[in-house]
Amino acid sequence: MQRFILGIDIGGTSIKIGCLDLNLKLIGKTSEPNSGDIEPQQMVENIFSVSNRLLRQCKISLEQVKSVGVGAPGPLDPKTGIIQSAPNLKTFRKTPFRDMISARFGRPVFLENDANAACWGERVAGSGSGINDMVFLTLGTGVGGGIVANGQIVHGTSGEAAELGHIIIYPDGRLCGCGQKGCVEAYASASATAARAAEALQQGTKSSLKKVLEKNGKVTCKNVFEHAEKGDELAKQIVEQTAEALGLVCVSLLHITQPQKIIFGGGMVAAGQVLLDRIRYYFKQHIWTIKQEDNVEICFATLGEDAGIIGAAALARGMQ
Amino acid sequence: MQRFILGIDIGGTSIKIGCLDLNLKLIGKTSEPNSGDIEPQQMVENIFSVSNRLLRQCKISLEQVKSVGVGAPGPLDPKTGIIQSAPNLKTFRKTPFRDMISARFGRPVFLENDANAACWGERVAGSGSGINDMVFLTLGTGVGGGIVANGQIVHGTSGEAAELGHIIIYPDGRLCGCGQKGCVEAYASASATAARAAEALQQGTKSSLKKVLEKNGKVTCKNVFEHAEKGDELAKQIVEQTAEALGLVCVSLLHITQPQKIIFGGGMVAAGQVLLDRIRYYFKQHIWTIKQEDNVEICFATLGEDAGIIGAAALARGMQ
Repeated sequence: MQRFILGIDIGGTSIKIGCLDLNLKLIGKTSEPNSGDIEPQQMVENIFSVSNRLLRQCKISLEQVKSVGVGAPGPLDPKTGIIQSAPNLKTFRKTPFRDMISARFGRPVFLENDANAACWGERVAGSGSGINDMVFLTLGTGVGGGIVANGQIVHGTSGEAAELGHIIIYPDGRLCGCGQKGCVEAYASASATAARAAEALQQGTKSSLKKVLEKNGKVTCKNVFEHAEKGDELAKQIVEQTAEALGLVCVSLLHITQPQKIIFGGGMVAAGQVLLDRIRYYFKQHIWTIKQEDNVEICFATLGEDAGIIGAAALARGMQ
Repeated sequence: MQRFILGIDIGGTSIKIGCLDLNLKLIGKTSEPNSGDIEPQQMVENIFSVSNRLLRQCKISLEQVKSVGVGAPGPLDPKTGIIQSAPNLKTFRKTPFRDMISARFGRPVFLENDANAACWGERVAGSGSGINDMVFLTLGTGVGGGIVANGQIVHGTSGEAAELGHIIIYPDGRLCGCGQKGCVEAYASASATAARAAEALQQGTKSSLKKVLEKNGKVTCKNVFEHAEKGDELAKQIVEQTAEALGLVCVSLLHITQPQKIIFGGGMVAAGQVLLDRIRYYFKQHIWTIKQEDNVEICFATLGEDAGIIGAAALARGMQ
């Protein structure tokens, strides 16, 4: 009987694979280094061999696997299963990745954008369980995300919806890697948070972070939050700017899809409650006053790194 | 045989009623003054009597009417049919308006937010025909709108999605009537466009609009566009600022739900092609450069004032 699903989360530097039962309980998981340079067919072979190893460890045969869910960098179109291109997967170009994986595994495959898959993971088994309207924002190297409206992932006309990092919050503000100015990603990603601190140091702002920069040759987002907690003025200011950028984007997102929850995930949530508190503070500073309360809950994701494999598996579970 | 639908569009100053066949062809329509001060039950009676008069004119009996669609100011929840409150309907307070109309007509009633109803009208019979992902923005006294994603109206958790006028484009910018600063409505509504011109005149900026202000005691949005066309520098600048605000909001909307079309409606579209051209110009100025083309079409609505009654009727058509 086919009682298991594989959930696969393909990133630029690693591939995570999980084996789940039909209740989305994670039976086992593994992570393998990935190179963005290898050819698509070679990546399919790698995924297949790592999956088989995982299944053996879980004492599950491939015959018991019902379907396979895959989250991959995009832009990609879940309807066609084609990855148009992806900065992190250099050899991919209009690659029919879904059908390639399906052919190798002999199973139906559901291919979804990686951020949407993680969003769906939170939707079915995490912080957004049972919620039909939510927004999920990941704070990492960039700012990504997913939107659920009317209980469905919002894909947009060609699968490129929820590029939430590129909402413009400060027109003519900082230049973003995408070419726009003032994107939320240019302020509030982990990388941008660290970069803003480093820039201030280079401009001569006094800060306890200066010793970190001298010792390590760089400042990380984690450093910024740690030094802010210890009272460093520059670090505090950088944290406030990050939180204000995120509070502002929450205001606009509330007015656009009116989610019940706005859920933050990604590496930066390790900063903990202080980050959440400050985002909520700036949300309240900027939100309209014509209503006394806005019933949106701003919170953290709960599945951590497993969100992608759980979400991909959940999407594949529904397939026939 | 029940071959007709009533589509009703309730505004603060008028109620529009249309009689449509099942192909959404408008058989006849009428408009009645409305007062935002009358009690809900009185409004139901007014709607009932005007509807009957319209039906007689169309030589259609009430027995031939299948269902009734109503677009009304919100916030309201289409699932419950309750209007929470509405600035333009002062006596409404948690009013079960759908059931009140249904009781009077003896027909199933679909109640939808007025902007969503107009959005759906454009979706089924106007500029967005056949499109599953679109955003509709109305430029009038305020800026309102609707979103269609995955072929469905996005309602949000309590029917308050698509408050698109309150997307923040310039943090710490102009104060909006909602209490936020820098809303797109505070720059790009017809009222805000006129207000910005009047403010500049009061501050002594030279402009051919000054004579209009002296003669009429006010400046309208129409005046601004007319004087811009004639080459007045202030008027041109105001038009540019309006268009830039709208271009900016198009960028963020594209990244959020990736609509195939962003459709502008409302009184300001009377300004014509120049407005559309300038919105498109600023969209291109602000949109990312990592992709050569973004397949979003920025265009005007085509149904004009009929969008609301057609959309409301279309929503009611699907009811059993």
